[in-house]
Parts: sequence; structure tokens; C-alpha cells
Amino acid sequence: MKAEIIAVGTELLLGQIVNTNAQYLSQELAAIGVDVYFQTVVGDNMARLESAVTAAQSRADIILFSGGLGPTQDDLTKDAIASVLGRELHIDRLSMDKIEGFFRDRGVEMTENNRRQALTIAGATPLKNETGLAVGNALVQEGKYYVILPGPPKELKPMFEQEAKPWILQHALGGSVKAIYSKMLKFAGIGESALETKLIDLIEGQSDPTIAPYAKEGEVTIRVSTKAASEAEALVKLNAAEVQIQQRLPEHLYASEDVPLEKVIVEWMGRLGLTVGAAESCTGGLVMEMLTSIPGSATIFKGGIVCYSNEIKKKLLNVPHDYLEGENCPGAVSPEVAQVLAEQVRMIMDSDFGLSVTGVAGPGYSEFKPAGLVYIAIAERGKETEIHELRLNGNRETIRIRSAKAILYRLWRRLVENEKE
Amino acid sequence: MKAEIIAVGTELLLGQIVNTNAQYLSQELAAIGVDVYFQTVVGDNMARLESAVTAAQSRADIILFSGGLGPTQDDLTKDAIASVLGRELHIDRLSMDKIEGFFRDRGVEMTENNRRQALTIAGATPLKNETGLAVGNALVQEGKYYVILPGPPKELKPMFEQEAKPWILQHALGGSVKAIYSKMLKFAGIGESALETKLIDLIEGQSDPTIAPYAKEGEVTIRVSTKAASEAEALVKLNAAEVQIQQRLPEHLYASEDVPLEKVIVEWMGRLGLTVGAAESCTGGLVMEMLTSIPGSATIFKGGIVCYSNEIKKKLLNVPHDYLEGENCPGAVSPEVAQVLAEQVRMIMDSDFGLSVTGVAGPGYSEFKPAGLVYIAIAERGKETEIHELRLNGNRETIRIRSAKAILYRLWRRLVENEKE
Repeated sequence: MKAEIIAVGTELLLGQIVNTNAQYLSQELAAIGVDVYFQTVVGDNMARLESAVTAAQSRADIILFSGGLGPTQDDLTKDAIASVLGRELHIDRLSMDKIEGFFRDRGVEMTENNRRQALTIAGATPLKNETGLAVGNALVQEGKYYVILPGPPKELKPMFEQEAKPWILQHALGGSVKAIYSKMLKFAGIGESALETKLIDLIEGQSDPTIAPYAKEGEVTIRVSTKAASEAEALVKLNAAEVQIQQRLPEHLYASEDVPLEKVIVEWMGRLGLTVGAAESCTGGLVMEMLTSIPGSATIFKGGIVCYSNEIKKKLLNVPHDYLEGENCPGAVSPEVAQVLAEQVRMIMDSDFGLSVTGVAGPGYSEFKPAGLVYIAIAERGKETEIHELRLNGNRETIRIRSAKAILYRLWRRLVENEKE
Repeated sequence: MKAEIIAVGTELLLGQIVNTNAQYLSQELAAIGVDVYFQTVVGDNMARLESAVTAAQSRADIILFSGGLGPTQDDLTKDAIASVLGRELHIDRLSMDKIEGFFRDRGVEMTENNRRQALTIAGATPLKNETGLAVGNALVQEGKYYVILPGPPKELKPMFEQEAKPWILQHALGGSVKAIYSKMLKFAGIGESALETKLIDLIEGQSDPTIAPYAKEGEVTIRVSTKAASEAEALVKLNAAEVQIQQRLPEHLYASEDVPLEKVIVEWMGRLGLTVGAAESCTGGLVMEMLTSIPGSATIFKGGIVCYSNEIKKKLLNVPHDYLEGENCPGAVSPEVAQVLAEQVRMIMDSDFGLSVTGVAGPGYSEFKPAGLVYIAIAERGKETEIHELRLNGNRETIRIRSAKAILYRLWRRLVENEKE
């Protein structure tokens, strides 16, 4: 079953917006086993719209349209399709009632052009719009399937999910289809290429389930996907693949769903009643910002100090003067200072863990040390402090994000290790 | 002059990536007066690629391709175009030297398929790739212009800017074209709809220059654009519009280029030799993270404290116990506590300014106060502390970003006011 997606709108051709609808619909169609062969964008112009419909008829079985269903004279999608198919347009009564009700409820007079949003191609199934006024359409003619959806993503997505997809499954795919099921595995403390190396035989050799890596700063995600007739059938295959992957990367797989590392940490520490404080130099508050972005972080995070200057490192975190100044001193970017920062902030915050980050975010050098050299440390009540040296690539932003994720990774590892004891 | 953009890549048809190249090229073409009539996406398939080229020939004068120039057997863009145009492919010597040098420098053996990246359609102008290995192409045949670009945006953008655009201007547009010139105006401390209301007559009534607003969390941008034969001609119109807008929003326009507020603040304070510290509760470090994201922030930012718990507010920032506990106490989310935090952190950091944020980021209530209630304060050496109450809408993330931008806005206003004195 071949599909084409036609997005209608001059704003797309001017580059004012990016065509996220095509991406969304492509993903959704792939998930029900429909192959998208072409995506087209055409402006709000009758002749060009008609030519796009005709071209799509010659190369696709299902044609999905997004956009051009609004109230203005520019909104021509249904007109063009009706014209190519030789059908009439009429007003869908239920949609018209809804539009009239909308204006009545707001005490606003409805302008006549709003009637256009209730237009339906003769013989088509109206697709309800839960989040807007323009009605969608679905119809079959000469073995070709036409699905007409509104342009705003907040209208298109619910209409596709609740109205169009069931219609396609029933009419175009005959009610029996294998859907694609996926599981997201999240990794930390390992780069994308190192992870790929460890899994290369699975990524390249395996076709069911398929295994595909995605990278974001400081985190790597693997999507494991399979086609199956039911979720239960899919889970058997997905879970087996997860076990296989987990065995190769036991120290890096932190979640089997798409959540950030900080969420796993905050929830885990919350369950154990543990607390943490942080002292940040080059990350400037990013570690704390990540932790506190998670609802519920107030129970585990007491506070912390951004010690950007040496003056504040000494004054608030008791870093000895001779660590920071004088010939042969280790300097602010050193394992010694990372250790003091972590231990001191833990004591000041009276928390179970103390985290620290000190390094050169760049651009350029600091203390004659290169951008990307970063020391992180984690102090824990009653245990020895752990210190790591990082040598990171990238620009200022990347180095800061990777440093913050690195110390969070070490905190997560500590929770794992402590649980084993 | 009509254009069509053809993006090549099965990953687009699967929805794995969104077609940002089409958006970028559409914007760039609009800026040089070329009308994009169609955008097409086609997979890595010879027959369908050829059909896309043929279809585009029938409806466009300039056809731009992105993607499918890589080393693998899937990369077929040049093959398909050469086949439709009845031309040969040969190896571009300069590109081949570069590819061989790339592998030699890395001490890696070049696999044979990398030669494909140096392929050039006979008679085409090679377009240099500054950031990758695959060479681009530009050619004319029977009055149609073909521009072939790589898929990765970091290769496509510089190649378009430096190689393809000049080629199009010279060959397709004959060297004389009115280009679009734009100026970005950045605003803070005002929402998009309030700003639009103040400028609605200009936005709707003016066609040259055009005035269009864009919103991002906590900031609003206005793009002022005009078509002109030269930059000097454009600037006369753009500057006049800027003055007009500035007069209506004198307290909110902070820059005439696309820079974040924190950059303006860091650079301004750096010139004046001023310093700042911050005490953050609900923003959890975000204000400091924003300031320290700017290179050079070390000269103006000494440090700060994230006081997420009441315990730390008392211990490190000397907030009186009876502000935080007991019947009828103002509580942590109060103007009283905001004031103490700002004044104390300024003294602790021995800085010229002290910033504070305390509020409810949500979800839900805290101290029986609703999410979105936030107090910010700014203390300055030798001046009275200024306190503001914010009532923000949105989710946890939005409320945090808007709170952080709000205190930065007040700091910027303070710099403006101080300069007037």
C-alpha cells in the first residue's frame, strides 16, 4: 500500500513553518505498515493544487492532505479535490451546528465565510475535529483512498488518531494489519559511537526487532521496534532484545522508556529518602537546573552553590587558598578542588550526596588548561569521595551539558552500586 | 522565476527526521525573490527519483535537490539527474583529492565507495563542500537550472550560502535582483499578544517594510523585512521602522539583532565592570545557567546559591525563621523572602547586584499558593531593593523560564535606568 502526503499552504513554501505534519503522518503510516513514497508541499493555489492531486493519483493508493480547510478564500483543498474527482461540495449539518454553536456561545456574530469549514465532499465520511472547527473528510474513488485533514498540528493529530487512522485501517487495509511496536532504551555514561560499536552486529544484522540508535547531548537512546499483530506478541520480542542489549551494556542502560536521567534519579532518591546538594563551577547551575526541572525534586534536592569565581570557592566552600593560587598550585580545574567542592557542599547542605563540577567550558583556555577538561566528584556520607577526569569535545554549550550529564550518571551509578550492597 | 525543492531520503519518508532543509531553502529563495511552488520528498529509489525530476522539470525553472550525495549505493541523486538529462558522471579531481587527503590525514584506508562523493555531472559547476566530503553541482540545461546540495544541514547551509546562492544570482537571476533584507528586534518584559496589540496597525497595515512577530518562551522577536537593491537602501527603511517601533515600546526593545537578553546583560556589565550574584529557589539554577551560558560571563558573575529548601534559605541566606514558619508567616513564596534573598546574596557575593527568584513552579500548589505565583527581587549596592510579583501561566518548564527571563529583564532595566542618571 503506497501513500503520498500532500501538505497545502503557502506558509510552508515561504519557509515560515517547517512541515512537521509530514513527519508525523509518515511515522504514523509507517507504524501501520503503509509505505510513504512521496511527500509534496503545494501552495494555496487552485490550479497547482489540482495538479498535485492528479500527480499523486498516478503514484499512490492513499493520498493524505493536510491544511487548507479554514474559513478563508485561500483555503482550497476540498474544492480542488472535489473538482478533480468530479464531485460536489455540500455543508455537513453536524459540523455546521458545531460552528454556529461555537460563535453563539461566545456571543460573537458568525461571519459567512465560516460556513466553508463545514464543507464536505459529496459521499465522503466526515472526520470530526475535536480541537477545531474545520471538518475532515475520507473517501474512496476508483480504488484510491483520500484522507483530508486540517493543518494545525493540534487539530490534525487527534483527528488522525481518532478518526482517520481507524478509517484507513478498516477501509484501505481491510481491518487486519500488523502494527509497529517500539520500546525506547536510554543510556548514559557512554557516547553514541562507543555504544554502536558494542551493538553493531545487532544493529546491522537484526531485522526483527530492528535496533536503531539516536543521540542527544549527553544521552543515547535506542529504539527497538517490531511488527506484530498484538502488543503481547510484540513485547515477547522487544523484551528479549532488551535483555540481550542490557547484558552488553549493564552499566549504561538506565531506563526502558523515554525519560531523562535526572527523572530516574529524582524518583529513585525520593523512594529511598536520600538528599543531594551540588557545587558547580563551569556548569553554572545546569546540574541543579536539570534536577529541579523534575516535579518532586524538592524532596531530594536541598540546594547548592554556583561558585564561578575563586573568591566564592574559598569563601563559601572552604577551598584552601593554596589550591587556587601560587606556583604549582593545582588550580580551580583540578581533582583536588573537585573533591573539596563535593565534600564541602555535602556538609553545608547536610545531604547524603554532594556533587561537584569544575572545568573549562571554553571557548579557549583557562589556567592554561584546554576547553573540555573537566573534573567531577561525588561525595557520600561515610564513604570515600569519587573523582573523575573528563576530556570532552564540543563547544561551550555541549561541554556544559555533557559535564552535567556525566555527574548525574555517576550519581545514578552510585545508587545502583549502593543497592547491590 | 519558479522553483521546486526536492529532498531525497527514505529517512524523511519514514518520518525519522523533519524536512528542515526545505524550510531553510524556501526562506533563502524567498529572500532573493524566487517563488517556491512545490516542495517534494522522494526516497532513495532510482525510478521514483527520476520521476520526481521529470515532474519538477514540467513545473519549475530552478530545481534544488538536497540529500543523496553520500558514499553508499543508496545515494542516487546525481545518478538520477544525469540519467534524466542524458549526461555522464565523472570524478571531480579537486573533490577526489580532498577525500583522499581526508582519509590519509586520519591514517584510515579509504574504501572504494567514497569515490562516489566526488562524482560530478558532466558540464556542471562543482559546488565546494567546506564542512563535508560530498561535492555539490550546479548546471543549466534547456533553460532549466539544477542545483544539487548535500543532505546534512551543516553541509547544505554553508554550500548554499557560499556557492549555490551566488551561482543562482548570477546565472538564473542575471546578477540583478532585489534581495530581502531583514532586521531582528528583540523584546523582553512583554508578552507576544501585548506587543502585537501595541503594533497591530503596523503589522497589519504596512507592506514595506513588513513587520512580523515571533515568540519564544520569555522573549518576543519582531522581524522587519524589506526588498531592496542594496543594503544601504534597505537600511533606510528598516531603521525608520525600528525607530517607529522603539517609540511605542521604549522599555522593552533590548537589541536590534537576534541575541538573547543574557548576552546583552553580560556584555554591558562587562564594559561597566559590574558584578552580579543570584539566589534562586523555584528556578533551581536557571538564571545562573542562562548568565553563564554566555562566554565572558566569568567577569561579571561571581556565583550564587540555589536555596531550594527552607533550611538552606535560613542557613546560607539568613532568611529569618519567622518569615518561613508559624501562623501568618509570609512563607517562602513572598515579597519579604524575595527581598532578603536578593540583599543577602548580594552581600555574600560582594557584588553590585543581587538577584532573587522564589515562587511556585508547579504542578499544583505550595504553601497554599498557586503554580505561577513568583516573586523576584533585585538588590543594588546603595539603593533600595526592587520587588515584583509575577502571576505566570503555563507548565513547570514555562513558569521557570519566564521567571528567569523576568528577573533578567529587571536587571537590564536597572542598567538602562542607571545609565540615564
